[in-house]
Amino acid sequence: MNELAGKIISGDIRSIARGITVIENDDDGSVLLLKELYRHTGKAYLIGITGPPGGGKSTLVDKLIKHYRKQKLRVGVLAVDPTSPFSGGAILGDRVRMQQHATDGGVFIRSMGSRGHLGGLALATTDAAKILDAAGYDIVIFETVGIGQSEVEVAGRVDTTVLVTVPGLGDDVQVLKAGTMEIADIFAVNKADREGVERCVIELEQLLSVKEMDQNTFLPSILQLVAKENQGVKELAAAIEKHREYLMNDGRLEAKRRARVKDEVHNIITNRLDKWARAKLTHDLETRENLEELYQKKTDPYSVALEIINQLGIEKP
Amino acid sequence: MNELAGKIISGDIRSIARGITVIENDDDGSVLLLKELYRHTGKAYLIGITGPPGGGKSTLVDKLIKHYRKQKLRVGVLAVDPTSPFSGGAILGDRVRMQQHATDGGVFIRSMGSRGHLGGLALATTDAAKILDAAGYDIVIFETVGIGQSEVEVAGRVDTTVLVTVPGLGDDVQVLKAGTMEIADIFAVNKADREGVERCVIELEQLLSVKEMDQNTFLPSILQLVAKENQGVKELAAAIEKHREYLMNDGRLEAKRRARVKDEVHNIITNRLDKWARAKLTHDLETRENLEELYQKKTDPYSVALEIINQLGIEKP
Repeated sequence: MNELAGKIISGDIRSIARGITVIENDDDGSVLLLKELYRHTGKAYLIGITGPPGGGKSTLVDKLIKHYRKQKLRVGVLAVDPTSPFSGGAILGDRVRMQQHATDGGVFIRSMGSRGHLGGLALATTDAAKILDAAGYDIVIFETVGIGQSEVEVAGRVDTTVLVTVPGLGDDVQVLKAGTMEIADIFAVNKADREGVERCVIELEQLLSVKEMDQNTFLPSILQLVAKENQGVKELAAAIEKHREYLMNDGRLEAKRRARVKDEVHNIITNRLDKWARAKLTHDLETRENLEELYQKKTDPYSVALEIINQLGIEKP
Repeated sequence: MNELAGKIISGDIRSIARGITVIENDDDGSVLLLKELYRHTGKAYLIGITGPPGGGKSTLVDKLIKHYRKQKLRVGVLAVDPTSPFSGGAILGDRVRMQQHATDGGVFIRSMGSRGHLGGLALATTDAAKILDAAGYDIVIFETVGIGQSEVEVAGRVDTTVLVTVPGLGDDVQVLKAGTMEIADIFAVNKADREGVERCVIELEQLLSVKEMDQNTFLPSILQLVAKENQGVKELAAAIEKHREYLMNDGRLEAKRRARVKDEVHNIITNRLDKWARAKLTHDLETRENLEELYQKKTDPYSVALEIINQLGIEKP
């Protein structure tokens, strides 16, 4: 066995960190590492904490960590920041949190940013979660800032998705709802000591009331929290547990995870194809004679694209 | 010439709407349509209005429309909702807005949601903007809800990017900043009658003060608005105009648009490859014998993915 893989499985913190870096950099060793670790995965429970900025997700995750630590569960957190191709490295809040838990071997927190290519971040976080899983963390939390695609993406990669919202987001909450109704297993209304919390809860209830339900559908809970004051955190953990139990019945968790594995194979393939195509195209495009023709609008992007695809040597795109 | 293309160029509203639908559905005719329209594009000025939910972007866009209409400019708006694979169709706010401008042929508003595959929405909105451009709209506004990838993406597809934020977003503003510092040409602090506006502006100023500047760098303005009351809208339009003038100098706009065309070719290619791979894979994966082995963890996603890639018949990914 690969030495790094062995150390990761034994739970060595430094090796876990190094393993995630190998994955982030997409080093040659990453595929080999993941191949070795794969059969040691599947024990961790994956939780997604997502929602728009300003929701207090970091604080909430911090309280959840403390809650799970009291139960002697080991917790890994992947703070996913899709904006960080520009910032580079951990954001301040995460560094503070990491220091706070630095002496606790049962907590591992890591910020992850985009690797700059299609689906790269999704793949990297999924793989990082595997490292934590193989290393024996009982709970792995994906904390993502975002609304829209990043949110939907994370829901596809975890067992339970918690959507954190706050009162007073305004009209755009409608947008939030439209996209998140289908993905949220639990709605956590944080900062519930703020004005407008009743309206926020009512709106969520109305939203859920139109959801098509049958006896197999899980009805998401709507919880009110003041995470800063540790209010509602225990209830949130209980709601997560309730959803986990729901998934454990009738093989739902198994089915969900199987679908996820298939998605993963898809993502790896498209990610590789994209990287390959980009490398090839950057060269091809730069050396093309018709680039100037394209700028002059004597040809068009579709014609150039299809022409290049035809040269790629694939059967029939 | 394609009949639909001809009608679009003549500015026929119904044909414009139909053209965008053709693009959204990725019908066979879409490539042909875009090829015909391409040489009629390049006249419209593209503005991105982006930022986290709750910023009042729709209201702001509405006021901008009215401002530009007074100047007899024709305005197209693409309201991009990356969450709508789940909602399907225009969100309520847009429908209200559309009705409001329904009798004004100089305004065209359309909601667009994800086509459900990698880069599909980016491509569809870019192409929809081309239709509006070819149809003679002077200004095309991309209005996107989002933080993170969707925001960065839209910045790559417009001439001027306006980031709309509001006071009191809390700690996550840090995340907002990290990703948006590089993409925003103008910061619009909306709802500036709210508490905390000074702090918000100071934070943005501090952020800009660390930006590496030389004489060629454009220094983004920070504007305070109360869009609902029409306060600051004229100033925003002036700031957009100032940025446009900056781009017109030294061939910057030309360079920016050339880079964008190249990106577009890239996006078309990766989008096609992705679609092709997915179609192929869905079939391949379903019929694979080792899918069960994968579930049993006797093999791993990377091994399966690389094996399938090897069968695709491409040179060397």
